Amino acid sequence: MAGKVIRRLKAVDQDFGKQLDCLLAWEAVANDQVEAIVAEILQQVRSHGDKAVIEYTNRFDHRALKGAEDFFLPASALTVALGRIRTEEREALEFAAERVRRYHKHQLQESWRYTEADGTVLGQQITPMRSVGIYVPGGKASYPSSVLMNAIPAKVAGVDAVNMVVPAPKGKLSDLVLAAAAIAGVDKVFTIGGAQAVAALAYGTESIPAVDKIVGPGNIFVASAKRAVFGHVAIDMIAGPSEILVICDGQTDPDWIAMDLLSQAEHDEQAQSILLCPDGAFLDQVESSLQRLLVGLPRAEIARQSLADRGALIQVESLQQAIQISNGIAPEHLEVSVKDAESYLPEIRNAGAIFLGRYTAEALGDYCAGPNHVLPTSGTARFSSPLGVYDFQKRSSVIHCSAEGADTLGRVARTLARGEGLEAHARSAGFRVKE
Amino acid sequence: MAGKVIRRLKAVDQDFGKQLDCLLAWEAVANDQVEAIVAEILQQVRSHGDKAVIEYTNRFDHRALKGAEDFFLPASALTVALGRIRTEEREALEFAAERVRRYHKHQLQESWRYTEADGTVLGQQITPMRSVGIYVPGGKASYPSSVLMNAIPAKVAGVDAVNMVVPAPKGKLSDLVLAAAAIAGVDKVFTIGGAQAVAALAYGTESIPAVDKIVGPGNIFVASAKRAVFGHVAIDMIAGPSEILVICDGQTDPDWIAMDLLSQAEHDEQAQSILLCPDGAFLDQVESSLQRLLVGLPRAEIARQSLADRGALIQVESLQQAIQISNGIAPEHLEVSVKDAESYLPEIRNAGAIFLGRYTAEALGDYCAGPNHVLPTSGTARFSSPLGVYDFQKRSSVIHCSAEGADTLGRVARTLARGEGLEAHARSAGFRVKE
Repeated sequence: MAGKVIRRLKAVDQDFGKQLDCLLAWEAVANDQVEAIVAEILQQVRSHGDKAVIEYTNRFDHRALKGAEDFFLPASALTVALGRIRTEEREALEFAAERVRRYHKHQLQESWRYTEADGTVLGQQITPMRSVGIYVPGGKASYPSSVLMNAIPAKVAGVDAVNMVVPAPKGKLSDLVLAAAAIAGVDKVFTIGGAQAVAALAYGTESIPAVDKIVGPGNIFVASAKRAVFGHVAIDMIAGPSEILVICDGQTDPDWIAMDLLSQAEHDEQAQSILLCPDGAFLDQVESSLQRLLVGLPRAEIARQSLADRGALIQVESLQQAIQISNGIAPEHLEVSVKDAESYLPEIRNAGAIFLGRYTAEALGDYCAGPNHVLPTSGTARFSSPLGVYDFQKRSSVIHCSAEGADTLGRVARTLARGEGLEAHARSAGFRVKE
Repeated sequence: MAGKVIRRLKAVDQDFGKQLDCLLAWEAVANDQVEAIVAEILQQVRSHGDKAVIEYTNRFDHRALKGAEDFFLPASALTVALGRIRTEEREALEFAAERVRRYHKHQLQESWRYTEADGTVLGQQITPMRSVGIYVPGGKASYPSSVLMNAIPAKVAGVDAVNMVVPAPKGKLSDLVLAAAAIAGVDKVFTIGGAQAVAALAYGTESIPAVDKIVGPGNIFVASAKRAVFGHVAIDMIAGPSEILVICDGQTDPDWIAMDLLSQAEHDEQAQSILLCPDGAFLDQVESSLQRLLVGLPRAEIARQSLADRGALIQVESLQQAIQISNGIAPEHLEVSVKDAESYLPEIRNAGAIFLGRYTAEALGDYCAGPNHVLPTSGTARFSSPLGVYDFQKRSSVIHCSAEGADTLGRVARTLARGEGLEAHARSAGFRVKE
C-alpha cells in the first residue's frame, strides 16, 4: 500500500497557521553560478551582437548558424506551419485567439483630460510601447497557448513591433507554436533562445532590434537574464510554480474537483494544488478520486510528486473561513466551486484569476475562456495582476496651464519649494506669477 | 573667465547621435559592499524583528530607543506639527493635496464584466491593496511634497493601511513632513529609516505590520534594500537622477527657460537639463540667462556642476525634429514651450510628464498642478508611467461559465491541452463537455 496521495489539514487545529505557512513556503533560489554565466552572456552579446548570439546558439542549441539570416524566420514559415497543423488544432487556436482578443479589448485604457475654470488643462495621455519581445520556450515544453497569451495583449495595445524569440534545439521547431505566432500576428521571429536571446532583445544587435519590454516564460537562465536586464527594459513577472486553490462546498462531482487539482499538479513537481472544503466526507471522496484518476495520466509521476510534496486537502469550518484563508494565500488560480458562487466574489481580495461555479474548470482559462493565463504566483496576487493590455501601454501626465492658472499654482509652488529649500524651483514658478 | 556654463550641440553635426548617447549615458552602479551590508540588515530584521530595528536605528540615526513604543509616532504628533507650521505653508500643502487628490481620482479603475450569449460571464475585478509602506527620507532632504505624491494615490485607491517610515536622525523630524502626512491621511508613522525600515515594512516585526508594497525615494541603502525585497513585496521604480527636456521655439522669455533648466539642475549634480531649439540666437540668450541667474541661487554650486557635466543646449533643424529626439530620449519631464503646444501632443510618444505652453513651469508639476511627481527617469518612460492610483490597485480575472459555455470552451481547451501534452488539463475540461 502506497502512502497517502495528498496531505490532510484541518483549519481548527491549533497549529494550522504554522502548517499552512510551511505548505506555502517557496522561495526562488538565487543561483550564483547561473547568474555568473548569464552575466557573461549578456556582456558578450552587448559587445559583439549577432556574432555572440550565433556562437552561443550553435553551442547551446546544437545548430550550425553561419549568419544572422540563419536565425531569422521568414513570415512564410509561419504560414506554412499554419497549413501543416491539423484543422481541428488550427480552428481551436483561432477560436482561442479570437476570445482572448475580445476579452483583452476591454482592458484598453483611454486618454482623458479635463479643463479647469481658469482654462488650465490636466490629463493623461495613453500610448502603446514601440516594441515588445516575446520569449517562447522551445524543445519539450512547447506552449502555443503561451504565444497567444503574450502576443495578443501587446497587439491589442497597439505595440508597433511584437517580435518573438524561440529556440530551435537541433533546428527543431514546433508547428503549433509557429502557427500560434501567425494567428497572433507576431511581426518577426528569431529562432534563438536562452540568455543570449534575452540579451539580444534587451540591447539589440545588428539584425535584432532592441525592444522596450520582454515577456514570456523560460528556464532559470532566461529568468535570470530577464532579471538582469530589468531596468534597461521592462520585463513581466518572474513566475514561480503554478498553483490552484479550490474552494468547494462538497456538492461538485469529486472527480471533477480531483481532476482540476491534477491539472495543476501535472505542470511540474513544484506546482501546488489545494482544496478547501467544510465537508470531511467530501475530502475523502476527492482523495479516492485522486488515487483513481492519477492512474493512466501521461504525467502521473509529476502530478503524484506535486500532490505529495505540495498538495493539501484542508477541512475548513465554513466557506466564509475558506475565503479568508484564500485571501491570505492570494492564489494564482482560485476555483470557487460552490452554490451561488457569485455571492462570494465581493469578498475575494487576492487572486490572479477567479473561476466561479461548478462548470468553470481552471483549464478553460488556460486556453480559451478569454482572460490571460499569465498570472501572479506565490502570493504575489496581493500586489500584482494578470498580464494584460495595460502592461503594454504607458501613461504620460499632461499639464497645460493658462496664464491665470500659472499665477495661482505658481504662488503655491513657490511657498512649497522654499519649504524644501529649492529656490530655483521657487523662482521658475515665480516668473509666471503676476505681481 | 570661467569655462562655458553648459555644452552646445547641433543636431546637424555628423556625430550628433554619438554625442547625444554620451550625454545621456547613465547607469546605476551596483555596489557590492552596500548590497552585502543591506543583505545583513534584511536578514537581522527578518530574524529578530523590533530588536534589530532598534539596534540599527540607534546606531545609524544616533538615537536611544529602548522599545518599539519609542519609534511609533502617535497621530497627535502629526496634528501638533500641522498646528506648528506657518499658515501659508499649511494652506499651500492643503491646496496641493486637494489638487493631487482630484487629479488622481480620474485614474481609478472600475471593475467590469460582460455576459455572452450562452450565459458565460467574463470580467475583471479591481481591488485595492491591503497595505502600503511609504518611505520618506529624513534629515537634509525633507520633502513634504513627496509625502503627498506617494500617500494620496494609495488613499484614493482605497488601500486599507498607508503606513509611513521616516528616519529621525538625532531625534529630529521635519514639521512639514509630518504635517503633509496628516493632510494626506497617513495611517501610522514609524520614525525609522534606512534598509532596516524597508526590511520592517517588507517582513513585518512584532510592532510594524508587513505591507504589500513599498514606495518612496531613499538613499543607496534604501534603494538597494527595496531591490532586494522586490518580489516578496511590490516596490515602485528605483529612480535615477531627475531630468528635464525643454523644447522651445525661441519665443519664450529666455530667463523663464533658463530658470526651468536650473530648477532641475539644482536637484543634484547628476540631474540633467537639456534644451532643444531651432534658434541659435535664442540658445545664446538662454546661456547668458543661465550665467546670470545662477548667481545668488543657494544651490548654485550643485546646479553649475549639473549643467557642466550633464546639461546641453541643442540646436535642432525644426520643432518636428525636436519631438523625434525627445521621443528617443524619453525624458522624465518634457516642457513644450512653443506656440500651439497642444498640436504636438499626439506626436509625443515617450515622456513621464508633459508640460505644454509657455506658462507651464515644470516646478508646478512638482508641487501642486495635480499629476504625480514620481516619474520614470533615465529613458524608462519608454515603458513605464508616473506613480498613480493604478499602482495601488490590482486586477483579478473573473470567469463564470454556464453549462453550455463549459461545453463549447471545454472542447477547444481539450484539443489545445492535448497539443501541449497536458492530459489532466484535457480531462478536467472534458468532464464538463456533454457527450
